[in-house]
Amino acid sequence: MPQLFYLADLFGVAVFAITGALMAGRKSMDLFGVLVIAVITALGGGTLRDLILDNHPVSWIRDDTYIVIASLAAVGTVIWVRLTQPIHEKGLLIADAFGLAVFTVIGTEVALQHNVPLSTAVIMGVMTGVAGGVMRDVICNEIPLIFRKEIYATACIAGALVFIGLRALDTPHWVDTSIAMLTVLLIRLAAIRWRFSLPRFHLLDRD
Amino acid sequence: MPQLFYLADLFGVAVFAITGALMAGRKSMDLFGVLVIAVITALGGGTLRDLILDNHPVSWIRDDTYIVIASLAAVGTVIWVRLTQPIHEKGLLIADAFGLAVFTVIGTEVALQHNVPLSTAVIMGVMTGVAGGVMRDVICNEIPLIFRKEIYATACIAGALVFIGLRALDTPHWVDTSIAMLTVLLIRLAAIRWRFSLPRFHLLDRD
Amino acid sequence: MPQLFYLADLFGVAVFAITGALMAGRKSMDLFGVLVIAVITALGGGTLRDLILDNHPVSWIRDDTYIVIASLAAVGTVIWVRLTQPIHEKGLLIADAFGLAVFTVIGTEVALQHNVPLSTAVIMGVMTGVAGGVMRDVICNEIPLIFRKEIYATACIAGALVFIGLRALDTPHWVDTSIAMLTVLLIRLAAIRWRFSLPRFHLLDRD
Repeated sequence: MPQLFYLADLFGVAVFAITGALMAGRKSMDLFGVLVIAVITALGGGTLRDLILDNHPVSWIRDDTYIVIASLAAVGTVIWVRLTQPIHEKGLLIADAFGLAVFTVIGTEVALQHNVPLSTAVIMGVMTGVAGGVMRDVICNEIPLIFRKEIYATACIAGALVFIGLRALDTPHWVDTSIAMLTVLLIRLAAIRWRFSLPRFHLLDRD
Repeated sequence: MPQLFYLADLFGVAVFAITGALMAGRKSMDLFGVLVIAVITALGGGTLRDLILDNHPVSWIRDDTYIVIASLAAVGTVIWVRLTQPIHEKGLLIADAFGLAVFTVIGTEVALQHNVPLSTAVIMGVMTGVAGGVMRDVICNEIPLIFRKEIYATACIAGALVFIGLRALDTPHWVDTSIAMLTVLLIRLAAIRWRFSLPRFHLLDRD
Repeated sequence: MPQLFYLADLFGVAVFAITGALMAGRKSMDLFGVLVIAVITALGGGTLRDLILDNHPVSWIRDDTYIVIASLAAVGTVIWVRLTQPIHEKGLLIADAFGLAVFTVIGTEVALQHNVPLSTAVIMGVMTGVAGGVMRDVICNEIPLIFRKEIYATACIAGALVFIGLRALDTPHWVDTSIAMLTVLLIRLAAIRWRFSLPRFHLLDRD
């Protein structure tokens, strides 16, 4: 079962790396830039969480599988796009929702292991899920997408809360994990399908 | 007295969160984006300082009052703007100057407790005061305001120096703290009032 | 010999600070902004490496020579530009290549001392060399140059690999260091001279 979880984590890394590589492509970066943006997107959220929680060593420092998977995903994306222009947008969004679900649950769990207040655990879950994407967008000079598009981080918050609730009930670990991940996944897929979004806050620019 | 200092810190958090929420509003972010930008603006400077000093646990990890206050301030800002469009710019600037004063003194003090060289303590004071605002501006795709507008960080430098000087004289803690905060506050208010600014460095773009 | 290495490190800090100050000038920042961007460019890469490796205290926290050198380089740049408008672009590029070589080797070595996998050591070498410049560009609202221009990070990767290879052969330390630095330097100078660059990844913007 932990083995399965590890594989899900690596799948999340690959998917996030692909979204990073695609964004780098839109900015016409060179191959090195594509690699860096892919790795930051895939590992940035978890790294930031580990630094703030003082949770050393950071996962990818000891186990270079993470970096290898992210790099392969980035290179694979470039080759794929060169060979067959179109990218299956729907498929990528669904894969991304799955990666988000895995990262959120992992982040919440790591935080709980550090005995932080529950609200902090929720924040760490969300941070693990979304910070990599925020770094990607900031480096690529875009206002982070997740602050503007359909329900995204909200799905993470819900998943983290469900996970914390189930842990309190002492259900088996694989049940907590699966239900929490499913929560993120379903909310996110529903948001994509019906274009749910949070209300925006508009303020006239006064500068 | 430490109680009063804690309250001043929370006040600084609330004020900085408001400036973050307003910036997010100018970028038409959704409610989640407003929350995140508010929290980063309020807590980013202190977090960066704690990471670099290896000062764990980071304040808001153990005490979720910080996150709660920052979130309430962000939500309050959105409601306030919806109900009554105008924001009292002057009031906000003065509140911001007060927050800056508190953060600078706290940052300098935390650094001194780690026995760093005095120049490092000054840098940590300035970092605590301004880094949250820099992160806010970078994520919102703006060149950080503090690098271009009236004397801002300079006020922090002066406050940190005064604080370090008074500590060396062994004056009572509340005296050091109050005078250093007052230094930041007065310089900043004077700069706003008379529009003082540092000379700019102009270089023609050669790209 | 370590003395010489320390001097080379400080030289790298000065050169990177100059590139930071020049970028700040192109954005018409004030003197404080120039200082901050210079310091971040010079010390950002090493700081990020130390945080991720949990390598405390971060170098410039205990030894304020780093901050002093970076600040002097920044102020010197402003004065130089005021007095004599033209900057010797070629000279700066060569100095930058030298700084890159020093930082890469130092970063790789620090990582190896932490017994990380070799791939992680390469990443830390590259990160030490390039992350400061990336931070400079992100804060100044530019897409990082190194993701788009001639072979830059690739030179770091080569240098880190050479360094790791020589360490495995147990050659004397000054030999490892010199040859690895020379590798970075020569690749980078050749890239500048003949305008080598990596293939770009172009993707039409579909937003």
